[in-house]
Amino acid sequence: MRKHIFASCLIIVFNTLNLFGAAPNKEKVELGKKLFFDPRLSKTANVSCNSCHNVSLSGDDSRPTSVGIRGQLGGRNAPTVWNAALNTVQFWDGRAATLKDQAKGPLTNPIEMGMESHEAVVNRLKSIPGYVEEFKKIYSDKDSLTIENVAEAIASFEETLVVKNSAYDRYIKGDKTALSPEAKKGFDTFNSMGCVTCHSGANFSGPATKVGTGFYMKFPVFPDATIESKYRFSKDLGRFEVTKIESDKFTYRVPSLRNVAMTAPYFHNGSVNDLKEAIRIMAKVQLNRTIDEGELNSIAAFLGSLSDKLPVISAPRLPTTTGTAIFE
Amino acid sequence: MRKHIFASCLIIVFNTLNLFGAAPNKEKVELGKKLFFDPRLSKTANVSCNSCHNVSLSGDDSRPTSVGIRGQLGGRNAPTVWNAALNTVQFWDGRAATLKDQAKGPLTNPIEMGMESHEAVVNRLKSIPGYVEEFKKIYSDKDSLTIENVAEAIASFEETLVVKNSAYDRYIKGDKTALSPEAKKGFDTFNSMGCVTCHSGANFSGPATKVGTGFYMKFPVFPDATIESKYRFSKDLGRFEVTKIESDKFTYRVPSLRNVAMTAPYFHNGSVNDLKEAIRIMAKVQLNRTIDEGELNSIAAFLGSLSDKLPVISAPRLPTTTGTAIFE
Repeated sequence: MRKHIFASCLIIVFNTLNLFGAAPNKEKVELGKKLFFDPRLSKTANVSCNSCHNVSLSGDDSRPTSVGIRGQLGGRNAPTVWNAALNTVQFWDGRAATLKDQAKGPLTNPIEMGMESHEAVVNRLKSIPGYVEEFKKIYSDKDSLTIENVAEAIASFEETLVVKNSAYDRYIKGDKTALSPEAKKGFDTFNSMGCVTCHSGANFSGPATKVGTGFYMKFPVFPDATIESKYRFSKDLGRFEVTKIESDKFTYRVPSLRNVAMTAPYFHNGSVNDLKEAIRIMAKVQLNRTIDEGELNSIAAFLGSLSDKLPVISAPRLPTTTGTAIFE
Repeated sequence: MRKHIFASCLIIVFNTLNLFGAAPNKEKVELGKKLFFDPRLSKTANVSCNSCHNVSLSGDDSRPTSVGIRGQLGGRNAPTVWNAALNTVQFWDGRAATLKDQAKGPLTNPIEMGMESHEAVVNRLKSIPGYVEEFKKIYSDKDSLTIENVAEAIASFEETLVVKNSAYDRYIKGDKTALSPEAKKGFDTFNSMGCVTCHSGANFSGPATKVGTGFYMKFPVFPDATIESKYRFSKDLGRFEVTKIESDKFTYRVPSLRNVAMTAPYFHNGSVNDLKEAIRIMAKVQLNRTIDEGELNSIAAFLGSLSDKLPVISAPRLPTTTGTAIFE
């Protein structure tokens, strides 16, 4: 019981941390939103950031893995962009420290947006007069349309995509009726069973670490042959693919549980369609527990209470060219 | 001169025709907007109506031809959805009479959204509880989630995408300063040279015909070997592909010129990147004229005056599933 109260207190403390000291620059946010929605940032002009991190949906694409240019399939499930600003590292393997660093990745990834280089991204944007003007207005640098400013603007928009008004949040703030009895029971089980060990903090993704540090965990800790043969989790070497450090094999940034009920399918490879199956697997391979039906249902109810009413985002008006195509 | 005044009057008359007698049903429009933006209406859940008819852009995709599921390329340039409600037939070949009919096409076209059948579309939507509820609320029919209602809702949204406040419109309404001298000269040339013969009416797409009738024209009328070898217009048999009637060979619905400066690249195969080149080609192969530089520049200025300040569309909040993926 003492442990439970301690865990709850920890969560409250993390929740009150305000990660955004300064108010975001409105013009930069609007520019970033345009870039985020603009498919012309991809080689074939049909894949935008929003294609895989759809803010009209749950900030993801409801697919196992994403579709890049020319129909190519990615290797990992697209994490939601909602509350990504609360992560202290980005990507499943933490290979980007910040949202700004992250934003540069997919642009030139050949199976995602497929631009030849960051220079090609900048040149594409320079062929659209409205962008040239807007960058000049917002960034006072002599050379205002740079990949650094592109990535910073996108990150500025993403930093606004923070939502923390789920039933759980209202419960924590004092509305004791916000959680159903089943969800409350699930919250207890979530804590007592040990899920909270990794899924702690304001974002249920681990203790507060400095930006760029990240909180990683091995998955699976207790490999299970039946589960593995069905879902092939271990085909992916996790953070090892980036660091080549043996101890990073099969480790991942602990993903947030906020809005988890809305972001099926699950896990780094998007191989599990159902939230309850995901919980069952987590108990088995992370805690070496066979979870019973009652525990499963109540944890699912608790996780459901972490779903936010996501706000409507106004789609930007994208600057067009006049009388010329963006392709030659 | 008399001919010019007559043409201008005709245009004014067409402009005042109000094609929307009744106010659109707001709830239906909102539902239609959701469906229009929802990539889950495609087999692979990554292609929505908005992917090719991007309302944040100029209602098209700024590509020669569009990209469907699995990276497949379409055969024709995506027409803008802005003012599509003013067309009396839809598609380049007029194979759909109404927006509602049109909306059903791409859903099951194997190289576009690729659903196996309209039944599969309905089943996909039935797997998303929010849609089931919304259809039930709006359509009183016992079986409310049907392909007919899906298409009708999408069309209801598209019917709201009508914009007629370009510089040209303001000029016609009496603001004589709205057009530059160059654009005015271009308007005269556009009329006197004969462009207006086909590009007449409120939408610059031909005389007012009953919905479903359409106004078609052969393209090219005067084939030019040099142009053909470069742009391959005649690889496409046009409306003949649908009707198999010999006289329909190489005929197309006359496309609107509204917002034409924003909808490069041009023609049914999107093979021409530049508006001036498109005008030069039109003069050559439709009017058998070699256009001079002055005429070209002024017509381009006039066409530029047909660009609207397109409104910002709020992106819808799409209903999500709870704890389950849409794929099995």
